[in-house]
Amino acid sequence: MVCAPGYGAHRGRGRCGQLCPKKGRLMRVVIGADVGGSKTVVVAEVDGEVRARIQAPGAALRPDLVLRSATTIADAIRRSLAEVGRPSADVIVVGAAGAGRQQEAKELARALRAEELAETVRVTTDGEIALVAAFGQSPGILILAGTGSVGLARDPQGTIHRAGGYGWQMGDEGSGYALGRAALGAVGRAVDGRAEATVLSQRVLTATRSSDISRLVRWAAAAGPGEIAGLAPLVLEAAESGDRAAGEMVTRAAEDLLALAVSLRGLFSEEKAVPVAITGGVFESGPLAGALRAMLAARSDVMPVDDIVDPVAGALSLARDIAETVSE
Amino acid sequence: MVCAPGYGAHRGRGRCGQLCPKKGRLMRVVIGADVGGSKTVVVAEVDGEVRARIQAPGAALRPDLVLRSATTIADAIRRSLAEVGRPSADVIVVGAAGAGRQQEAKELARALRAEELAETVRVTTDGEIALVAAFGQSPGILILAGTGSVGLARDPQGTIHRAGGYGWQMGDEGSGYALGRAALGAVGRAVDGRAEATVLSQRVLTATRSSDISRLVRWAAAAGPGEIAGLAPLVLEAAESGDRAAGEMVTRAAEDLLALAVSLRGLFSEEKAVPVAITGGVFESGPLAGALRAMLAARSDVMPVDDIVDPVAGALSLARDIAETVSE
Repeated sequence: MVCAPGYGAHRGRGRCGQLCPKKGRLMRVVIGADVGGSKTVVVAEVDGEVRARIQAPGAALRPDLVLRSATTIADAIRRSLAEVGRPSADVIVVGAAGAGRQQEAKELARALRAEELAETVRVTTDGEIALVAAFGQSPGILILAGTGSVGLARDPQGTIHRAGGYGWQMGDEGSGYALGRAALGAVGRAVDGRAEATVLSQRVLTATRSSDISRLVRWAAAAGPGEIAGLAPLVLEAAESGDRAAGEMVTRAAEDLLALAVSLRGLFSEEKAVPVAITGGVFESGPLAGALRAMLAARSDVMPVDDIVDPVAGALSLARDIAETVSE
Repeated sequence: MVCAPGYGAHRGRGRCGQLCPKKGRLMRVVIGADVGGSKTVVVAEVDGEVRARIQAPGAALRPDLVLRSATTIADAIRRSLAEVGRPSADVIVVGAAGAGRQQEAKELARALRAEELAETVRVTTDGEIALVAAFGQSPGILILAGTGSVGLARDPQGTIHRAGGYGWQMGDEGSGYALGRAALGAVGRAVDGRAEATVLSQRVLTATRSSDISRLVRWAAAAGPGEIAGLAPLVLEAAESGDRAAGEMVTRAAEDLLALAVSLRGLFSEEKAVPVAITGGVFESGPLAGALRAMLAARSDVMPVDDIVDPVAGALSLARDIAETVSE
């Protein structure tokens, strides 16, 4: 076992940590988890150095199904602990979609504490960890777009606000679901000549293993939001290769996501440009991130942040803060 | 018991009919059923006169759930027979959503025959009975828009074609589902100032018994297509009373339904205007029927039919034809 390079910098010792063989002090283990609708990411850090990054299925909190989410999250945390060779952590911070509802957040925290995976467990929203990852505790606007979409802002007083995020049937404009649904619609309209031909027709048939349109119709009638959102990468690829219908879908998505940022911009004073960061699966490849950043850059009241935010880094950062407070 | 006024005109006698007390001949009972996603309508006719009209829940055919649909349909047929005081009918014709899939249509026919409700049972699509109701066996275009939407045409050679009808996640443009979904989106965008205020906000909250937006968000996340389509009348009413957002939704729906008609118009020769009839719940009140008819009337290649088609009349007409053929 070796001590992490950043070891000397930390100010305390984990109460359940192991003794560091080099310096005779305990090593600190903190874990951050980003729990979304389509995937869960868990990162374990030992004395300031990331030692494990685990990906698991989505486990967004839903009423009456919190225990199922807790099982998925706990399993992923255990895998990360196994990878760093430790039975438990000092602090775990979980940012989960659906944790904005107090009841579900409390149930998840209780269930995770019962698993005895750490001395301290904190559950917060996926939005808060993403904002921390983007701006620390400083003000700014963050656009998240994965299966769903939502805009978040921390105002200069530190209060968190949101715009959108009303779900797949009421909102989620510019999300993976919206892109996948648009692709299905374009394929249908192309069948009977209501819209131009698109490369999406063949690609969507292939991706859904549909031998013909009537099979695709059946698939679409029964597909859940996550499955529909799974078609979004096809739209992004098709747009990149010049397909006009797909290009229009990407432009529309960028406009819808811009509207979230503009809505939140109203919370800030007018004098200077507010930074806008982006995160989520739809930005990871293809032209949507670029299209949205170009629209943001064209305005004087906001300014796009270059990097794509990794929300789990915010959970880790919060976990580190708690570990330091506990050990002081 | 009295003989129906049209009695003397019919050419045969139902094999399971009762003796007509006035003329010493058997009375003929035919039944038509229109089975949709949100409702089922059954009409019983005795010797050419409608004697019962029953409304029952939707029973559209879905893979693996055909027997459940059959139970609903058989119950409604039994209620109509009870109302006309007969144990069974001569002919039943059922036009059912989902019967375009051969397997489901056969299963439904088998299940209904096992109920011994009539000598002859025929199952066809909801589209065919609607086309017959609109145009008999003559050519024309029919736009159906209830929970879903589809365009149908009988071409001059008698072949039936369709456009759209790809379901709530892949199509159904201009349908009740599309209108309800648009209403939810407008309510969400109005919350955070991305769209103008609309009277739909309060009306949708009330209709869904949601005490606030977060309850509505939960409702929308779990609502089925039929429930979302149930919001369409709110949009039609709001548009009629001048709400701008609702008005735009109705215009958009009319454009989408017009596109179905235009797509099917390509099947006909260019010389004369093709009649376009409309049917379905979204046309029964409010401004959508008028908006679509105005768009149709503005074109020279189609002409709107004035009446709203009652599809069950097509099922009855087909049942009457079979009864006459059988008894000849």
